[in-house]
Amino acid sequence: MPSAIQALPATVLTPALSTPSTDAIAAEVPVALVFNGISHAVMMCTPQNLEAFALGFALSEGIIDGIEDCYGIEVAAAHVSGNDGDLPSIHVEITIATRCFARLKEKRRTLAGRTGCGVCGIDSMDALDMVPEPLVPMAWAHDIGLEQLQSAFSQLPALQVLNQQAGAIHAAGWASADGQLQLVMEDVGRHNALDKLLGSMAQQQLLQQAGFVVMTSRASYELVRKCARLGLPVLATISAPTTLAIQVANQAGMRLFGLCRGARSIAYTANR
Amino acid sequence: MPSAIQALPATVLTPALSTPSTDAIAAEVPVALVFNGISHAVMMCTPQNLEAFALGFALSEGIIDGIEDCYGIEVAAAHVSGNDGDLPSIHVEITIATRCFARLKEKRRTLAGRTGCGVCGIDSMDALDMVPEPLVPMAWAHDIGLEQLQSAFSQLPALQVLNQQAGAIHAAGWASADGQLQLVMEDVGRHNALDKLLGSMAQQQLLQQAGFVVMTSRASYELVRKCARLGLPVLATISAPTTLAIQVANQAGMRLFGLCRGARSIAYTANR
Repeated sequence: MPSAIQALPATVLTPALSTPSTDAIAAEVPVALVFNGISHAVMMCTPQNLEAFALGFALSEGIIDGIEDCYGIEVAAAHVSGNDGDLPSIHVEITIATRCFARLKEKRRTLAGRTGCGVCGIDSMDALDMVPEPLVPMAWAHDIGLEQLQSAFSQLPALQVLNQQAGAIHAAGWASADGQLQLVMEDVGRHNALDKLLGSMAQQQLLQQAGFVVMTSRASYELVRKCARLGLPVLATISAPTTLAIQVANQAGMRLFGLCRGARSIAYTANR
Repeated sequence: MPSAIQALPATVLTPALSTPSTDAIAAEVPVALVFNGISHAVMMCTPQNLEAFALGFALSEGIIDGIEDCYGIEVAAAHVSGNDGDLPSIHVEITIATRCFARLKEKRRTLAGRTGCGVCGIDSMDALDMVPEPLVPMAWAHDIGLEQLQSAFSQLPALQVLNQQAGAIHAAGWASADGQLQLVMEDVGRHNALDKLLGSMAQQQLLQQAGFVVMTSRASYELVRKCARLGLPVLATISAPTTLAIQVANQAGMRLFGLCRGARSIAYTANR
């Protein structure tokens, strides 16, 4: 399996001199997600926690309805041939319930064919499924405020192990309702980091617990959509949200916080 | 057409008080790219410069071979129904040469079906087309160094018009070989910003000129791949590259600079 961080040659350029060196670089590896033998998607990932990633992707994209629909996950290293030696790649074989696989095949049949990035493989608006069902309101969600956000975000940097080494790596974390950070996952892609977190929460039976998701990124649409699909009512991000993230969070009845930096956060949803 | 920045309600939380306010938010709108009547991909975009975006996407994804293969682009606003009012969406109809459309249809037929994000709609490794052909070496590319990078990046913030208003918006710019920034495009997605830049360069017949691409983001695989496909030999980014971005840049014979900040840049490719 390729390692998540690799030391590669780099030359540091400054006005005075040019210094040959090595730099710790975040690995980015194509990961094919194969459901019951059918290749469904290729995502560019940090090659770590890929079982959790595959499970989280299957849940947050609505391919399976719960962890009990996933019968097994196998991760195997592979290669793609290049001009100048092979490039690493990874295949993840996920075995899911017949019911879920039949639904996935049906969904694939109704799509016209090749599709685009940004919204996980949707090639027409009809397939977008942009608007979540409103979540069941949770009383504890309204008690989450600046104090809990500050607490969780202050604990985050120490747990961003990969980012400390290589930089440019996103983190997704889950904090209990009192602001104690319980779990952190990292990836070069923010949506992958969130899928790793969601998969890991499913494995540890944390999805029904009171708490909130924190992310080092901006809040874009797909992060809100993934949280809504799993019934997680509170999302907080270090950077700013987009209009669609706010609109969809409002439609789902979620609470969305952004620009969570030091002793300041901004609440963007109507439940603020 | 939805505007690129929208003022939305926001409540600023600080330890002392909670202040209702409004905040300038970057719009994120699903954009369906429809080639000769067939919906091909949906991308989440900043709704601005969408003609350039569609043209750049068609070029950088290898759907068309040159601007002469694109016969027309029409951008139209649409809506997706939500629980709580409609959400904006956009359809872009692109008319391309019969030869290119036949090739696109053939490619779609050989793919198994629904696909994933991160690598623009690829659902199996076979379809990944990860490794570019080596570029024809350009003598001028080797004269681009710290001085030209510093010059271009120092001119960038003043031209990030949307980012100044709303934050969290990426920019892709093109500088001539002497470091003068010529063109800047913005988008919530880094790959969209680059596609807008590439499309705009094609429209202005700049693709064959000596110069380099600058980006506010990290250097991930798909940015290098898109530049390689259009024969652009130099890419420089503010944040760090990934391993795959470096490997693919080396295989293409490109020069890749990262962490371009102030009087310092790092050269990551063998041509450094």
